[in-house]
Amino acid sequence: MAVVSQGPCALLLGLLLCVLNPSISHAEKLLIIPVDGSHWLSMVGVIQQLQKRGHEMVVITPEASIHIKEASFYSLKKYPVPFQREDVETSFAELGFYAFENVPFLQRMAKMYEKAQKDSAVLLSGCSHLLHNKEFMASLVESDFDAVLTDPFLPCGSIVAQYLDLPAVNFLNALPCSLDLKATQCPSPLSYVPRALSSNSDHMTFLQRVKNVLIALLENFLCSMVYSPYAALASQVLQRDLTLQDLLSSASVWLMRKDFVKDYPMPIMPNMVFVGGINCLHTKPISQEFEAYVNASGEHGIVVFSLGSMVSEIPEKKAMEIADALGRIPQTVLWRYTGTPPSNLAKNTKLVKWLPQNDLLGHPKTRAFITHAGSHGVYEGICNGVPMVMMPLFGDQMDNAKRMESRGAGVTLNVLEMTSDDLANALKAVINDKSYKENIMRLSRLHKDRPIEPLDLAVFWVEFVMRHKGAPHLRPAAHDLTWYQYHSLDVIGFLLAIVLGVAFVAFKCCAYGCRKCFGKKGSVKKGHKSKAH
Amino acid sequence: MAVVSQGPCALLLGLLLCVLNPSISHAEKLLIIPVDGSHWLSMVGVIQQLQKRGHEMVVITPEASIHIKEASFYSLKKYPVPFQREDVETSFAELGFYAFENVPFLQRMAKMYEKAQKDSAVLLSGCSHLLHNKEFMASLVESDFDAVLTDPFLPCGSIVAQYLDLPAVNFLNALPCSLDLKATQCPSPLSYVPRALSSNSDHMTFLQRVKNVLIALLENFLCSMVYSPYAALASQVLQRDLTLQDLLSSASVWLMRKDFVKDYPMPIMPNMVFVGGINCLHTKPISQEFEAYVNASGEHGIVVFSLGSMVSEIPEKKAMEIADALGRIPQTVLWRYTGTPPSNLAKNTKLVKWLPQNDLLGHPKTRAFITHAGSHGVYEGICNGVPMVMMPLFGDQMDNAKRMESRGAGVTLNVLEMTSDDLANALKAVINDKSYKENIMRLSRLHKDRPIEPLDLAVFWVEFVMRHKGAPHLRPAAHDLTWYQYHSLDVIGFLLAIVLGVAFVAFKCCAYGCRKCFGKKGSVKKGHKSKAH
Repeated sequence: MAVVSQGPCALLLGLLLCVLNPSISHAEKLLIIPVDGSHWLSMVGVIQQLQKRGHEMVVITPEASIHIKEASFYSLKKYPVPFQREDVETSFAELGFYAFENVPFLQRMAKMYEKAQKDSAVLLSGCSHLLHNKEFMASLVESDFDAVLTDPFLPCGSIVAQYLDLPAVNFLNALPCSLDLKATQCPSPLSYVPRALSSNSDHMTFLQRVKNVLIALLENFLCSMVYSPYAALASQVLQRDLTLQDLLSSASVWLMRKDFVKDYPMPIMPNMVFVGGINCLHTKPISQEFEAYVNASGEHGIVVFSLGSMVSEIPEKKAMEIADALGRIPQTVLWRYTGTPPSNLAKNTKLVKWLPQNDLLGHPKTRAFITHAGSHGVYEGICNGVPMVMMPLFGDQMDNAKRMESRGAGVTLNVLEMTSDDLANALKAVINDKSYKENIMRLSRLHKDRPIEPLDLAVFWVEFVMRHKGAPHLRPAAHDLTWYQYHSLDVIGFLLAIVLGVAFVAFKCCAYGCRKCFGKKGSVKKGHKSKAH
Repeated sequence: MAVVSQGPCALLLGLLLCVLNPSISHAEKLLIIPVDGSHWLSMVGVIQQLQKRGHEMVVITPEASIHIKEASFYSLKKYPVPFQREDVETSFAELGFYAFENVPFLQRMAKMYEKAQKDSAVLLSGCSHLLHNKEFMASLVESDFDAVLTDPFLPCGSIVAQYLDLPAVNFLNALPCSLDLKATQCPSPLSYVPRALSSNSDHMTFLQRVKNVLIALLENFLCSMVYSPYAALASQVLQRDLTLQDLLSSASVWLMRKDFVKDYPMPIMPNMVFVGGINCLHTKPISQEFEAYVNASGEHGIVVFSLGSMVSEIPEKKAMEIADALGRIPQTVLWRYTGTPPSNLAKNTKLVKWLPQNDLLGHPKTRAFITHAGSHGVYEGICNGVPMVMMPLFGDQMDNAKRMESRGAGVTLNVLEMTSDDLANALKAVINDKSYKENIMRLSRLHKDRPIEPLDLAVFWVEFVMRHKGAPHLRPAAHDLTWYQYHSLDVIGFLLAIVLGVAFVAFKCCAYGCRKCFGKKGSVKKGHKSKAH
C-alpha cells in the first residue's frame, strides 16, 4: 500500500530531478531485497543516493524486521512471516551472548552449528512465505521493476529476481564458505588467498596453508546445510532445476564492500566492483553532548569503544575487567554500552547508549578505537586513520582483525582470554607507539586515494544494470563449462592418451624392428640350444 | 640537454598550475620509455594530459626512432644506437610486405621467426647501448624522477626503472605469449581464456580447447628467444640474478588498453587497470578537404579504409582486386594508401596519404570501416559505432577481428585468399544488413558507459604511483611463492601422505586383528591338514 501512495510523488520528484539534472536519462524503478541487521546499514546510503538521482525505490522486508523501517527515500512493503520481531531480536542477542561464553572449542562449535541450523531454518521459512504469497508476488510482478538490488547473504532476493525475470545487483561484504568466489567463477588460489575464518594472512607458513586447504575442503559441507535449501526452494518456485551456483551466479554485478587496503590482493572478476569504505565517506560535526566530552578530555584526547549493534550486554566479570583497564589510561573513553554499568567504572569512562561512531573517529582528538572488528568499524577506523584495539567476536571479525594487525595498524585481543592488563597494555601501545598511528595513516591515505568514490561507483553500476537490462558482457564463459572442462582435464587426458599412444606404437615398432634384426640370430641360438639338449 | 634547458620552465609552469588547480598536490617528474611505432601513438594522449596537470615529462628514445619526435609537452632525450632510422623503417615495411606474401604456412612461420630473431637482436642491442651509456644513464640518475612510464613490449624500460630504483607503470595492449598474465600472476584458465594468436573465442569446441592448450605449451618456448636476453642483460647491468618474470613483475601498475566490450571476460588482478578506448575519446570536426568528400557522397555516405600506419604498399594484383570491389558499392570510399594507385580505381574511391581516422569514423555519414583490425582501429570503430570489414595482417589483429566478428559487429576476410567478390559482399553485408549496425551500436553504448574515462583513469594511476612511490598494497603474495607452492602441490602431497599413511596403518591393524581372531583357527585347520597328510 505504501507503494501506491508514494509512487506518483516519487515519480514526479524523479521527473523533476531529471529536468534539473541532465545526467539522468530517465527515472527507473528498483526493487530492493535487503538482509536485516548490520548488513542493511551500509545499503541505506546507496538507496538514498539512488533516490536523489530520481529513481523509485521499493524495499521489501519481513514484518518481523528490526532495523529496516519506513523512511522518506523509499517505499516499504512488508510481508507476513511465521516468526515475530522478538524472535529475531533474541537471535541477534544470542550471537553476542555466545561470543562471551567460555566453553571448550568443540562445544562452542556445536552450539554455533545448532544456532546456525535453527536460524537458517527460520529465515528460510520467511523466504518460503514470501515466495508462496501469491498476492504479494503478483503485486511485485505488476510493479514493473527495472532491476533488483539484493544482499545475497540470504539468496531469497536472487530467487525473487529470477521469478520476476529481472537483472540483479548483489551488495555484500562476502559470502560464507567463499560462495561469492564460486558464484563469480573467481579463482582464489589457496596458497595465498586466505579462506574466511582461517585467521591466515596472504603470507602463510606451510601449516597455515594446510589449514587453508582443509577449511576449503570442509566449507562446502558446512555451507550446504544453510544454503542448499534455497536451491530446492528456487527449483520449486521457478519450476526448473537450479543449483545454488545457478542461483547466485545469475547476478549481473557484485558490489563488494572490500578494497585492497583492508583485503589482500587476489584475482577479481570483471563483474566484481569493490566499494569498500562506502560507509565512511563523510564525517559530520558531532553533537554538543559529545563535543563536551571531547573538549573535557584535554590534551590526552579520547578513545572510542563500541562492540557493534549486535552486542548489547557483556558478562559482569568481563565488563569489570574491561572497566578496570579503561581506568588505567589518561584518555577519556566513550563506551557504547547498554548493559548494567560495571561497579568499578573509572571517572574517565563515559557509558553511552549510542554514539556517532564515524563522526567521533573523524575528530582530531580521537587517539584509539576499541572495536569488535566488524567490517563497518574497521573501514571507519581506516578512513579516519585511528589505530585499533580489536576484540573480534564472531563471523568475519577475526579475519578483519588479522588483516589490520598484519598491517601494523592495531592489536588483536582474544576477548575470552584477555586480562585487564592485556587490554590496558594494548591501548597504551596503539596510543603511544607511533608506528600504529603511522601505519593506519598510511592505510588511510591509500584507501582514500581512489579515482572515484565508492558510493558513486555503486550508484553507477546499479544504474548501468537498469539501463542495459543486465551486464552479460561481463559474464565469463566459465559458467558454461563443467568442472572438468574448466580445468581442461578432458584436454589433458586426450593429449596424454595421444602421447602415450605414440610412445606405445613407437616402442612396439622398435621392439618389432629389434626382433626383425636380431630375431634370427636369437632363434638360431635357441635352435642350437634345443639341439644341444 | 633538452631537459636542462626546459626543466626550470616546466617546473615554473607546474608550480603555476598547482596554484591554479588545487587538485594537484605538487608537480612530479616522470621518465617515459616508450616503444616506437603504433605503440607510441596511444601513449601520447596520456603524456599530454599529465603535462597539462603540471608534471614534468622526459621521454627517452633511440636516435633511430621514427614516430617519437620533439613535442611541446615533453622533453626528448635521444641516445645513440648501433642502427639507423632507415633500418627501423625497413623493418616496419617488411611487416606489411610479409603479410601479403602468399607462401605456404610453414614457410611463412619460418620467415616470421627469422624476422623476429633479427629484429629483436637489433632492439636488444639498442637497449644494451642505452644501459651501457654511462653518461646518459648518469644524467637519468641525476634527474631525480618520481616514476617510470614504459611500454613493456620491450622490457628495456623495466630495466631502467630497476636501475634507477623507481616504481614503474606499464602501458600496453598485451604482451606476446601471455607474458603480461604471467608477470601479474593473473590466472587465465585455458578452457575459456583464448590464447593470443589462437583466433579462438571464449566459447571453444573441444578441439579449439586442445589448440589453446598446445599454444600455451608452445609459447613459452617461442618467447624465450625474444625475451630471455633481456633478463640476462638486466642481471648484468643490475648485478644480481633476475628472471624475466622478476623484471616484468616489478611494475606497480599495468595500464592495459583492454575492456570487456572488445575482450572476453576473464580474471584480472588488482594492479591491472583497463583503459581500452583511451585513443578515441573525442572526435574533432574534420578538415575542409575531407568535409568536401563527405558532403559529395550524398545519401550513401562514406566508407573509411585504412590498413594502419605500418602498411604503406600492397602488391599490385591485390590492390586491383580491392579497387574493383570498392567500385561496386554506391558509397564514397576514402582509402589511406601511399603506394602506386591501382589502374582500375573507380570514381567513388579517393586515395589519400593520410586521413583523420577517428574523426571520420565519428561522422554520421560513415557507413563502414575497412581495417586491418589493429587494436587502435577496432576501438575507434567501437567508439564511433561503425561496422567493420576486417583484414587482419599480423600480430594480435586476427584475435581482434575474431572478437568483433563473434559479437556480430563485423566481417573478417583473409587478405591472401579473399576475392574481389568476397570484399564487395562483405561491404554490402555490413552496410545493408542492419544487425551489424545494431550490434556495433550496442557495443558502443556499453563501451562508452563507464564510471570514469580511460584517460582520466590512466592519469590517476600514474599520479598515484608517483604520489605513493609505487603500489605495493596491490601486489599479490603469489609473487613470493614457488610454482609448486602456488598450486598447493606440497600441501596436497602432505595430506595425501597422511591419508595413505592412516589407511595403511588401519589396514595393517585390521589385518593383525583378523589374524589374531581367525589365526588360531587357521593354524588348527592347517595342523589338522598336515596331520591328515
